[in-house]
Amino acid sequence: MSGRVPVELSKAYRLMNHGPTVIVTSHHGGRSNIMSAAWSMPLDFDPPKVAVVIDKSTFTRGLIEASGEFVLNIPSRELARLTVDVGSSSGSEVDKFTSYGIATAAGAVVKAPLVEGCLGWLECRLIREPHIQQAYDLFLGEVVAAWADPEVFDGAHWKVEAGGKRSIHYVAGGHFFEIGESFDVSNRD
Amino acid sequence: MSGRVPVELSKAYRLMNHGPTVIVTSHHGGRSNIMSAAWSMPLDFDPPKVAVVIDKSTFTRGLIEASGEFVLNIPSRELARLTVDVGSSSGSEVDKFTSYGIATAAGAVVKAPLVEGCLGWLECRLIREPHIQQAYDLFLGEVVAAWADPEVFDGAHWKVEAGGKRSIHYVAGGHFFEIGESFDVSNRD
Repeated sequence: MSGRVPVELSKAYRLMNHGPTVIVTSHHGGRSNIMSAAWSMPLDFDPPKVAVVIDKSTFTRGLIEASGEFVLNIPSRELARLTVDVGSSSGSEVDKFTSYGIATAAGAVVKAPLVEGCLGWLECRLIREPHIQQAYDLFLGEVVAAWADPEVFDGAHWKVEAGGKRSIHYVAGGHFFEIGESFDVSNRD
Repeated sequence: MSGRVPVELSKAYRLMNHGPTVIVTSHHGGRSNIMSAAWSMPLDFDPPKVAVVIDKSTFTRGLIEASGEFVLNIPSRELARLTVDVGSSSGSEVDKFTSYGIATAAGAVVKAPLVEGCLGWLECRLIREPHIQQAYDLFLGEVVAAWADPEVFDGAHWKVEAGGKRSIHYVAGGHFFEIGESFDVSNRD
């Protein structure tokens, strides 16, 4: 079981700036759900905002629209199997937390659960923009609390080491990349 | 100099599904510009659409709003220095193509140039959504032509090999990851 420490909101964008695949959790009216989303990105630094694409067919969408809340969980490679599984079944048919034996913890601000074993977590409040939700399945959120596994993120910087935990980046058809080597390019001036 | 072959539009999302940092090129009224953007994502499969965040302070923004077109170029690690440079200077002050000696090619549909040496290119037509452009700096586009370096993308799948070209994934402060090892997780059913 990994740890979880708070991340300052102004640094929260760094958890997803490099484009990892995320797991979206939601909760409303006594029901929670979990799905994966390849399409998400930061939208602003401070206050941090995010954008994520949530298809009309998903059970998650109704929970987010009703509750006005969601969590973006950033899985490690150890959770790649789970990431595919929760993207291939619907919460309208099955309780995925029970089916897949998914351990969760409570967030600090929103009611959607945090998935244990992730590298980072962004608790978000939906910024309601009905037109783009309807026309493009595009959902915006303000990050209201953020967390990271201190083994991989020191509060401001990723620490990805040989043999260590890494974020995953979905392509298609069950095919992923894990994140690779880090490197620095200094500004010229 | 790398090659460039067309990518079927229905497969174009795969060029950016794994969250690479992109370079945005634009052109209007005889002026072209180039900037980097850490925040972009696919928005739909077919017809493919994309979302990208373009700050109000950028020269690029005016060119995109005026022309209704842009290109998302996906740089390799060899272009990481350039990616930082074009993100740290403004086209309102300098012609970055000349200053940095950037080689370009013409696209097939839009007038914004393709940056040579990239791994993939998405020619896009702006989907005008003034409210979210103004409120969130969020720009949507439909991909109208796509290209890839055949050394790294075979038309449907990435081919990232040891020592080969790799996409780059920006974090902050000149710090990047390159994409790492690929792996497959099959569906259970």
